[in-house]
Amino acid sequence: MRANVLVETGKMQMVERPRPSPKAGEVLVRIHAVGVCGSDAHYFREGRIGPYVVNAPLVLGHEASGRIAAVGVGVDPGRIGQRVSIEPQKPDPTSPESKAGRYNLCPHMEFFATPPIDGALTDYVTIGADFAHPIADSVSYEAAALFEPLSVGIASAQKAGITAGSRVLIAGAGPVGIVTTQVAKAFGATEVIVSDIDAARRDVALKFGATTVVDPRESDVRSLAVDAFIDASGATAAVIDGIHAVRPAGTVVLVGMGADEIPLPVPIIQNRELVLTGVFRYANTWPIAAALVAGGRVDLDSMVTARFSLEQSQEALVADRIPGSIKAVVIVAEGD
Amino acid sequence: MRANVLVETGKMQMVERPRPSPKAGEVLVRIHAVGVCGSDAHYFREGRIGPYVVNAPLVLGHEASGRIAAVGVGVDPGRIGQRVSIEPQKPDPTSPESKAGRYNLCPHMEFFATPPIDGALTDYVTIGADFAHPIADSVSYEAAALFEPLSVGIASAQKAGITAGSRVLIAGAGPVGIVTTQVAKAFGATEVIVSDIDAARRDVALKFGATTVVDPRESDVRSLAVDAFIDASGATAAVIDGIHAVRPAGTVVLVGMGADEIPLPVPIIQNRELVLTGVFRYANTWPIAAALVAGGRVDLDSMVTARFSLEQSQEALVADRIPGSIKAVVIVAEGD
Amino acid sequence: MRANVLVETGKMQMVERPRPSPKAGEVLVRIHAVGVCGSDAHYFREGRIGPYVVNAPLVLGHEASGRIAAVGVGVDPGRIGQRVSIEPQKPDPTSPESKAGRYNLCPHMEFFATPPIDGALTDYVTIGADFAHPIADSVSYEAAALFEPLSVGIASAQKAGITAGSRVLIAGAGPVGIVTTQVAKAFGATEVIVSDIDAARRDVALKFGATTVVDPRESDVRSLAVDAFIDASGATAAVIDGIHAVRPAGTVVLVGMGADEIPLPVPIIQNRELVLTGVFRYANTWPIAAALVAGGRVDLDSMVTARFSLEQSQEALVADRIPGSIKAVVIVAEGD
Amino acid sequence: MRANVLVETGKMQMVERPRPSPKAGEVLVRIHAVGVCGSDAHYFREGRIGPYVVNAPLVLGHEASGRIAAVGVGVDPGRIGQRVSIEPQKPDPTSPESKAGRYNLCPHMEFFATPPIDGALTDYVTIGADFAHPIADSVSYEAAALFEPLSVGIASAQKAGITAGSRVLIAGAGPVGIVTTQVAKAFGATEVIVSDIDAARRDVALKFGATTVVDPRESDVRSLAVDAFIDASGATAAVIDGIHAVRPAGTVVLVGMGADEIPLPVPIIQNRELVLTGVFRYANTWPIAAALVAGGRVDLDSMVTARFSLEQSQEALVADRIPGSIKAVVIVAEGD
Repeated sequence: MRANVLVETGKMQMVERPRPSPKAGEVLVRIHAVGVCGSDAHYFREGRIGPYVVNAPLVLGHEASGRIAAVGVGVDPGRIGQRVSIEPQKPDPTSPESKAGRYNLCPHMEFFATPPIDGALTDYVTIGADFAHPIADSVSYEAAALFEPLSVGIASAQKAGITAGSRVLIAGAGPVGIVTTQVAKAFGATEVIVSDIDAARRDVALKFGATTVVDPRESDVRSLAVDAFIDASGATAAVIDGIHAVRPAGTVVLVGMGADEIPLPVPIIQNRELVLTGVFRYANTWPIAAALVAGGRVDLDSMVTARFSLEQSQEALVADRIPGSIKAVVIVAEGD
Repeated sequence: MRANVLVETGKMQMVERPRPSPKAGEVLVRIHAVGVCGSDAHYFREGRIGPYVVNAPLVLGHEASGRIAAVGVGVDPGRIGQRVSIEPQKPDPTSPESKAGRYNLCPHMEFFATPPIDGALTDYVTIGADFAHPIADSVSYEAAALFEPLSVGIASAQKAGITAGSRVLIAGAGPVGIVTTQVAKAFGATEVIVSDIDAARRDVALKFGATTVVDPRESDVRSLAVDAFIDASGATAAVIDGIHAVRPAGTVVLVGMGADEIPLPVPIIQNRELVLTGVFRYANTWPIAAALVAGGRVDLDSMVTARFSLEQSQEALVADRIPGSIKAVVIVAEGD
Repeated sequence: MRANVLVETGKMQMVERPRPSPKAGEVLVRIHAVGVCGSDAHYFREGRIGPYVVNAPLVLGHEASGRIAAVGVGVDPGRIGQRVSIEPQKPDPTSPESKAGRYNLCPHMEFFATPPIDGALTDYVTIGADFAHPIADSVSYEAAALFEPLSVGIASAQKAGITAGSRVLIAGAGPVGIVTTQVAKAFGATEVIVSDIDAARRDVALKFGATTVVDPRESDVRSLAVDAFIDASGATAAVIDGIHAVRPAGTVVLVGMGADEIPLPVPIIQNRELVLTGVFRYANTWPIAAALVAGGRVDLDSMVTARFSLEQSQEALVADRIPGSIKAVVIVAEGD
Repeated sequence: MRANVLVETGKMQMVERPRPSPKAGEVLVRIHAVGVCGSDAHYFREGRIGPYVVNAPLVLGHEASGRIAAVGVGVDPGRIGQRVSIEPQKPDPTSPESKAGRYNLCPHMEFFATPPIDGALTDYVTIGADFAHPIADSVSYEAAALFEPLSVGIASAQKAGITAGSRVLIAGAGPVGIVTTQVAKAFGATEVIVSDIDAARRDVALKFGATTVVDPRESDVRSLAVDAFIDASGATAAVIDGIHAVRPAGTVVLVGMGADEIPLPVPIIQNRELVLTGVFRYANTWPIAAALVAGGRVDLDSMVTARFSLEQSQEALVADRIPGSIKAVVIVAEGD
């Protein structure tokens, strides 16, 4: 089978690899669509993200969908042919974290496209049968691939405690900010204020449901008094402004990856009893993603702004630099 | 001022009463609209609801809106003229329940139209300034009166834990069922199944957002496996069926008032670890109601199916018997 | 290996069976001690518990401890020889319930001594390696066997929301009531009122930390206004009295198994917004059990009032009828 | 009446002031005992704490107990003579925060000894009747004064989610650290590790229930993997080390006041999904404090290491510099 592999920083290469066999409890998935994530682009450009270093050829891509081609021992063969969205996690189900319902924090996690685990920019992958989530006929492979960033948005909204009537500030109108904007609305937020320094991206946020957009350089973000602040920018200034923007007893969820240390205004957190946390992937979000997409609460198809073939993966990885880009998708296989 | 008073079971009478004066911290509200609740109709027809007995002339009506006409000591005089929705509760703010954020459970509560406390079918009422909630210009007095049943729906959805992607069963497509259907959608539910034996009411539920409606006599309600069941019927059979319909670890919220004892299937509650609770009014819901109405997430105006003058209050109290009726409103004062 | 098997209602029989082999991920445990649970006694006497019917020879016993004798594929061989407390559950880790941290509610659960799954009144059992919890040297095998009922108490206290300063009512001073009394204290309850009609059992409750004991026939249980009520009796009257005894916004946890239907006072639940739920076994409680026993917060050894050999299992199953009995234990293997 | 007033930085002065009169809903309390808090000492030495500046003579002291001497309108006169612990808060009960059960975050709060509100180093104070909490005969005035720091500990333990079996790290063995150590045990923690650079203070922590004490300069605090970290030191290094010490999904509660900005390791918070928050006083903790003290779960009397008269208040304010000091108390009135 084909794979487009990151062989060194800034260089992708098409290679042939043996098709993997599904182990007991796993399925083999014929990949159809793979979304490109900022982390993929970062590995491509920098060769590392924090402690995760690309030391050997790595298959990127962890936003993926496809069709089940084979099943391992113990998996219902009737699933062969099923269209699925892939949740790209292989936790150890016997770890205390997994058993507590937080398998995303499992210390033995193998996560797609995180060194040294390969990802989905290839023809076939194996994944636990329970991590290959069936999708409705009405859901496109592209949308199904984007259940993954949607899940980041869902996890963020859950941790932020967003509910009916919430006022939310989201910093950063990139793909995560856009999907989180949609998710916040789907969780019942009635005000979703999106902050971004880029006017074009603010327009995109409006199109996807933001009730207000602000330029943080011109707007007094700190006075917003929102119920929840979700940072999808990773920018230190945005994080600090956002914390100031939260009303007493409100929440702060840091999604964007930025500096290793951020000088946080601890007295603000204390005096307002803010609850600050972060998101590390997600657990048990796929059924919610499926319900939101099937119910028309979230529109993932419109977020796809560019499509590439597997051979063009390198172009896809830098497509975020194209003006107006939200999400690039690699079409590994055409058709149903 | 005028009041239309329940003088004995089944008999209303217009009387003149002295206009009340707002005490310290209170406002005087010129009433504009009053929604008729099932409990009003029940007091009218039966003279009692459980332990609450109408022993003396009683002003009914606890769903009310109007305009602030005067303020008591300590209240900003600038509020005179403000259009408001009335939260019809007068708790003791120093009780442990109030201080814990559950003022609806305050043992010293004085609640509108609950004997011996008078309600809103009159020209003027007094209420704590913080219980007279300003409304946006775009919100009608009729809608503002219905913030009260909307609050019941909000409290129910909160206790039911409804969130994005929830599957919800609501029993009873009366006014509470209809408003709860809308609220469930606003909280993110993607499936809202409404059960009612009346076909016309099921049609109304569909109009207000139910994704499915069922006749419980013909449909296998117990096999639904929903995340949450909200009973808005008070019918013993519906409660029991509904409990069976909930998936493990799901929730049951009993809103409708019915029998003093219901033979509940305790082994089902235990084996599925269901969480069962009830709703007794609401606390801190008005800001959420305002946000949902202003944001177009809930449509209250369309729920008003009949209007009456204050003098016609008795007709309003029996309007629930009119086919197609959802909610009757008494227009105490016309205009803005 | 030996097993003492329930061959028909009221009749146990020693048999020889082949020693099982641990599958991948499992361990083989040499059983040392097995506590007798009321459910074991019930199966012995009645041949069924609700929908669970003993149709074939069944090994009873699900409160067990022992020493790891062998390990399956994928389990650290260094664990051989380890002293362990057995959590007698074999859930499917890929079910949605398991992945959500509620593996006790997994629909594919295989639970010890629940037909048709065999239990621990035998020389050897297999169990998932992560369900064989290592114990400290200071913990006896008898105590380790009783981590199971202790876990029921922990799950109950968690669901009841018991915390520092809580006032708790526990109905029933049998083994579950006694262990829950201890657990409630360990969770910080400062008042633990135990209700039982048997004076001797009330004395036992006092010995294990109850701050007050009451005879429900002589005491006005309904006026207690506790924060939480835990029923460990299964008696309909106790459940109803207990619900009345809870303050507004308090909790009710039904642990004891009783009637298939209980006529609950729903208006009390509604008007006080009580939260009522049940306990179905437990999840993730063994580490807490271990910490509480090691920390001296709970005393399990003193709960053992009778010991029997494996051959004497039938006597152990009826030992609950001995006056003063709290917990009978079958010593399958002597020594360390 | 007498008051010992902070007239300028570093200078206290005895003055005569008129005895206040209780307003409606208030009581007048004859002060008996006042604990000295670090914040009192800080105001004395520095004249400010962050934005709170002492611009005029200020009565310090907010840990106080006494006896009700008079009552305002609407308060039961039968309360005169009652021994009480004072919760030194005067929130606006109509603010949204108060109504939500978070009156400590009320923006209109008047808090004892926070400029420009006077405190308790005087003969008489007025306080809301519901903030003057009756104490049992067995509770000393000194202990009753210390319900205030105890409440800080309770609020911290609540926010940290401490429960049975928790492993907790507490940084700082000053008065707040010591009381929080006791509280953590009372909430069920089975391991309470206290970190302090001062050996004498570590010994005090052991005496009050710490299960382990560590010198952070010599011990690998970061590898502890605790469930919860509570900072009672305000030291930047301790905060950062403590965050690293928390297991995935654990909690961080910042109680100690320190730098305006702390460079927090945000990737640690994100990757472990830690929940970080702060404590700003407390709400609804006095009944818990009373229960813990009456139940012998917390020992406040032994924390008093020095006593002073009202005239000696200035000495009391610097008593924290005495080796071995935990808590100084000013005895304003002797006897019962």
